[in-house]
Amino acid sequence: MENKKGNIYLIPCTLGETPPLEVLPLLVKKAIENIDHYIVEHEKSARRFIKSVASKKQQNSLHVEEINKFTKPKEIPQMLEPCFNGFDVGIISDAGCPGIADPGAAVVEQAHQKGIKVVPLVGPSSILLALMASGFNGQNFAFNGYLPIDKVERKQKIKQLEKKSIVENQSQLFIETPYRNNQMLESLVKTLQNTTGICVACDITLSTQYIRTAPVKQWKRIKVDLHKRPAIFIIQG
Amino acid sequence: MENKKGNIYLIPCTLGETPPLEVLPLLVKKAIENIDHYIVEHEKSARRFIKSVASKKQQNSLHVEEINKFTKPKEIPQMLEPCFNGFDVGIISDAGCPGIADPGAAVVEQAHQKGIKVVPLVGPSSILLALMASGFNGQNFAFNGYLPIDKVERKQKIKQLEKKSIVENQSQLFIETPYRNNQMLESLVKTLQNTTGICVACDITLSTQYIRTAPVKQWKRIKVDLHKRPAIFIIQG
Repeated sequence: MENKKGNIYLIPCTLGETPPLEVLPLLVKKAIENIDHYIVEHEKSARRFIKSVASKKQQNSLHVEEINKFTKPKEIPQMLEPCFNGFDVGIISDAGCPGIADPGAAVVEQAHQKGIKVVPLVGPSSILLALMASGFNGQNFAFNGYLPIDKVERKQKIKQLEKKSIVENQSQLFIETPYRNNQMLESLVKTLQNTTGICVACDITLSTQYIRTAPVKQWKRIKVDLHKRPAIFIIQG
Repeated sequence: MENKKGNIYLIPCTLGETPPLEVLPLLVKKAIENIDHYIVEHEKSARRFIKSVASKKQQNSLHVEEINKFTKPKEIPQMLEPCFNGFDVGIISDAGCPGIADPGAAVVEQAHQKGIKVVPLVGPSSILLALMASGFNGQNFAFNGYLPIDKVERKQKIKQLEKKSIVENQSQLFIETPYRNNQMLESLVKTLQNTTGICVACDITLSTQYIRTAPVKQWKRIKVDLHKRPAIFIIQG
């Protein structure tokens, strides 16, 4: 008989300074209390998060490995080793849900290949919360990550997403590096048709949360400073 | 000075028989304790859910309106009236997050038009949990709702989604009426290329949860009964 393998737990975390249990359910707290092996985006912020959820946890008993976009596939098998010794392993990214616009998917991919059970836990995803709150089509939507930085390419991409949102009736979500958010909104307002809807959702779940949906025509008069505030943009023509 | 308007709260609910606070954070409980006006998919299941979260709540003090795909836009303004009288209104669908593959978006759309603040709360979304646990691309993904029922059209759509997942490097998510899940998996295995990955995620957050990612080649040998179990399908070529 095979030894019982540990599972991979996908552990969402808060999207900023907010009391953890206001946005995370009890299973997240239980998982963190039980798990000592972690694969995380940044060790320092993950340890701070673990402490905020389970203050009695011994930090020096934790085994923490880092992953990011530079992690090579061949480095991952040893991170999954604890599972074969019967230990559960938690994956935690810097904000929100591991694997969604955040590291984690490469580890999960290998876990499936090795027959390790993968358990996703509930928590905040700015993408999902923004879409819920946008009033746009939630039956058909696409998340496109970052748009091109080059001005001409970006304009083309924005026009292409607008067309897609109309032809396929599919809401189009994307993000921007927070210090370029104001320029992104400006580009959208300049490039899109007057009747196309834009939703800007920023600082989601935080006390400064701002979520607004309006047609381009109205956005021309709206004043909001998105500088350095994490934001999701959604358009629907 | 304008009177203070109530907000619209988007209140996720459990995905089946599971203790609510295992998958819902405290803000959901607080919201339900505070809110007496609801717009819901089905009154009976919403009342049962409200009771499971806030057992002390007086059921006869609740004002409950139903929405579904037959609700006309002109019926919505009166559902938002309580906001103009200073009351918060909660939206609750039968399972998961309102507005995401579920009713709610039409109400939210009108709330934005009327300047009512929309507050999305954290909770389980089978779409998001499935994507996290799939190991597929979470930087670029699309949810396509239901595929066509007609066999020929369905096959075409499956091939088209496979192509899209390759050309655009975009994971493709979709759902099926639960009593047709086994046929859907069969169609996928027959129609897709041997190397294309399929993730099947069913009974998410329940004790019978099943999540598996493998290439088509392997799915040909996997035996699993998905009949009448809520499931998300994801493909990536």
